[in-house]
Amino acid sequence: MAPHSNDAPADGSPYDADLMAAVTELGDALRGLVDASVRTAVPVEDLRAAAAGARELTTQLAAARRPAGRLSPLDDIRAFRQVYNMVSGVGSALAPPVVVRVVEDGVLAETTFGLAYEGPPGFLHGGMTGLVMDQVLGAAAIHAGLWGMTARLEIDYRGPVPLDTPVVLVGRVTESAGRKTIVTGTIALATDPDTPLIEARGVFVTPRAEQMQSYFSGVSDASGRPSPPGRPTDATAPLPADGAR
Amino acid sequence: MAPHSNDAPADGSPYDADLMAAVTELGDALRGLVDASVRTAVPVEDLRAAAAGARELTTQLAAARRPAGRLSPLDDIRAFRQVYNMVSGVGSALAPPVVVRVVEDGVLAETTFGLAYEGPPGFLHGGMTGLVMDQVLGAAAIHAGLWGMTARLEIDYRGPVPLDTPVVLVGRVTESAGRKTIVTGTIALATDPDTPLIEARGVFVTPRAEQMQSYFSGVSDASGRPSPPGRPTDATAPLPADGAR
Repeated sequence: MAPHSNDAPADGSPYDADLMAAVTELGDALRGLVDASVRTAVPVEDLRAAAAGARELTTQLAAARRPAGRLSPLDDIRAFRQVYNMVSGVGSALAPPVVVRVVEDGVLAETTFGLAYEGPPGFLHGGMTGLVMDQVLGAAAIHAGLWGMTARLEIDYRGPVPLDTPVVLVGRVTESAGRKTIVTGTIALATDPDTPLIEARGVFVTPRAEQMQSYFSGVSDASGRPSPPGRPTDATAPLPADGAR
Repeated sequence: MAPHSNDAPADGSPYDADLMAAVTELGDALRGLVDASVRTAVPVEDLRAAAAGARELTTQLAAARRPAGRLSPLDDIRAFRQVYNMVSGVGSALAPPVVVRVVEDGVLAETTFGLAYEGPPGFLHGGMTGLVMDQVLGAAAIHAGLWGMTARLEIDYRGPVPLDTPVVLVGRVTESAGRKTIVTGTIALATDPDTPLIEARGVFVTPRAEQMQSYFSGVSDASGRPSPPGRPTDATAPLPADGAR
């Protein structure tokens, strides 16, 4: 997976490629471990040994920590690059990950949900659908230069989404006025992309300047500079003129 | 955490308490590891060493695997006990976990979302809200004897949910007719439970007999017996008379 492709838009500030590769390697390894942990049938003593091993790794990783509110040096919040994003982040053990690509009229993503995301036996957890669609719809808004926070999310379930089966997710902006953007999207089997199993609609609203200040005044990039999210062209966010699209 | 409390209702078939304790221990250890992995600031070589360690644990856990469609021996799908449930499962590395309790008029849950669940800096991912509310609303339906699959989910975001802060989640059935159940719920700060940050409404529908057959005919319990989900009193699911509520 291209380290740059974890969210849309794909550009942003330069980053340490070695660190990105290592974070991606750890993310991949942890995703494999999470998957093994829900499929395993090893005896009790082996489960306990694995737990001890995991606690040891935790101690090693906890030797140095990011301060609260300080973004990862790999993140560029103005370009919506978040390596630990729980849906699309290359470094997130929770993420399938869903790799979002920009296409002509919105965004397109492909993924396969493993057993860790099970709800009814054999099928995707109904709530996971909401999680990934929020991300895909939000990415479509961002691509259109219309970043906002989710104000309303509606999901209609036309059929259960099977596990361990490739699916395609799409999102496109259907309406935009002032600070409000409406985005719709679907999830379908990769082999039958025109028959939606899930239909979603999201309303995203860019916070007013005073809300932005209240929510994000404590956020800084890895060098300590204030780094709130925001629309690239929005006066509510202190973006440089050469900032991300 | 009581091993029995990972979903509502809390009863069901007996289980191997040693195995439950070991699965819970591994779940706890992996949740700690996931948290450490997103907060860490250790150098590249330490990230790579942790990745190697995680791959080793994966190999150990993969030594024995559950067959596809076979539930964990700890699960009782008729009592909606799923130890690897990604929201409430004691064994799930993805779960906060959200521990759901039955109260007089529905269900109540308390949890604290860590940094792994971040969306906008400092706040819960908007989609994670959908994931946990689907689980909480579904648990309320189950408690009322009205299990169904999610047909529609609506989330209204009144304010951002802060990370690392205790929150309370509630769900209650507001309407039920035939196979359809409507459940509403909220998320609020534990210190201000009457001011919802999130309002949710879910429509759950119990599949018809032929759908149940089509969706779940391959599901079996740990001993190999067919074990589909279903309403306890529903002729669509082959439940024993003394089955779970």
